[in-house]
Amino acid sequence: MTAAIEKQALLYTGKAKAMYATNDPEILWVEYLDQATALNGKRKVPIDQKGRLNNRIASLIFKDLANHGIANHFIEQPSDYVQLVRRVTMIPLETVVRNAASGSFERKFAVPHLTKFAEPVLEFFYKSDQLDDPFINDSQIHALNVATPAIVAEIKRQALQVNQRLTAIFAAMGVQLVDFKIEFGLTTTGKVLLADEISPDSCRLVDLKTGASLDKDVFRKDLGDLTSVYQEVLMRLATVEEA
Amino acid sequence: MTAAIEKQALLYTGKAKAMYATNDPEILWVEYLDQATALNGKRKVPIDQKGRLNNRIASLIFKDLANHGIANHFIEQPSDYVQLVRRVTMIPLETVVRNAASGSFERKFAVPHLTKFAEPVLEFFYKSDQLDDPFINDSQIHALNVATPAIVAEIKRQALQVNQRLTAIFAAMGVQLVDFKIEFGLTTTGKVLLADEISPDSCRLVDLKTGASLDKDVFRKDLGDLTSVYQEVLMRLATVEEA
Repeated sequence: MTAAIEKQALLYTGKAKAMYATNDPEILWVEYLDQATALNGKRKVPIDQKGRLNNRIASLIFKDLANHGIANHFIEQPSDYVQLVRRVTMIPLETVVRNAASGSFERKFAVPHLTKFAEPVLEFFYKSDQLDDPFINDSQIHALNVATPAIVAEIKRQALQVNQRLTAIFAAMGVQLVDFKIEFGLTTTGKVLLADEISPDSCRLVDLKTGASLDKDVFRKDLGDLTSVYQEVLMRLATVEEA
Repeated sequence: MTAAIEKQALLYTGKAKAMYATNDPEILWVEYLDQATALNGKRKVPIDQKGRLNNRIASLIFKDLANHGIANHFIEQPSDYVQLVRRVTMIPLETVVRNAASGSFERKFAVPHLTKFAEPVLEFFYKSDQLDDPFINDSQIHALNVATPAIVAEIKRQALQVNQRLTAIFAAMGVQLVDFKIEFGLTTTGKVLLADEISPDSCRLVDLKTGASLDKDVFRKDLGDLTSVYQEVLMRLATVEEA
């Protein structure tokens, strides 16, 4: 099927990916970029190999999720930096799932770092560069017509499913999944479908043995070389997924 | 019953009220103060008559709500500045109900001033001076053990009931109820009970004819004399309630 897919016009360049149309209106051509951003894109730095590593990590995770009954936009990874995905209409919400306190939660509520939650915490942020992606609750999402209550309920259901499977994948890699951000789109038939990416850019990962960060916090907090950290994550993931 | 109630030790001084114990452990003695605060208490100014006006307004509203099936902590108003209320364990949440965009909602989401919502918007803020009363969602409320999902659901139910009745009261006064903040407590038997106060300090009110603010925004934004505005609100309310 995908042998005939051709890259066409650039649609959008995000923080770490560029999206292109293809000759199939249902399929997008995604190129993962060798760059990292922080502060909602205000800081941007080239990072050797990052696009290749994240593409491989995201591809393996999306395949694993699909194998575990969690449908998503991933179609295939034709080359190191390229992913073919199903085209969806993105819902302008970042869905954050937290298993332990970190980042903005820790700062906002003055909770000790990595305090575990009895149940996962779910948060939504309204994707808007102009508004700086504000934290938003269900009632506001509804009032602003960002998504219907039924769509929000379906996003929550899928997000918790993703969390369950991701937690298991990372545990098998000796890694604690502290929190992660995912995004969803709507298919042409109105189905909520997991999209965007899942990688150390969008997950907060802690080595269970050493307590070291294995994610973009290494870049955000200048903790060391991001490439080698992402390489380590991919190596462990490949060991688990390709066993 | 209340003839024998005696004011005892000061329990707590808030932004606009002082709470005292009484000889009845189930009853609190509340004194409304002649002062206004802004910026979460960082700015504090004496305002002539404000305590008397707010006490009378809150007493009339609480009585009206009780008459319309919305139980609350109000017992009686024995004098100009004093209210006797049922003692409850306060739930540390501010519940905000919005009928139209204003204040933090307008700023956060860049929505035109007074845009009407198809359904009321509900927001919670976690009462913590140390944390500066952060906006909080249901999942975070649960994770931080601020309140159980059942209590949150009951707060929402009552808040929407209060909104319905308050909107009608203010409409009869020629006033648009834009939004308001309420707080709830738990009785000794675990019932969620409306408490705190309802007044122009906690409501955003707009004159339907002139568009003028009839609430604490007059103070926050230095729009004029707060006492005469609160007098106007009380005069209209008394006309409606004592008719």
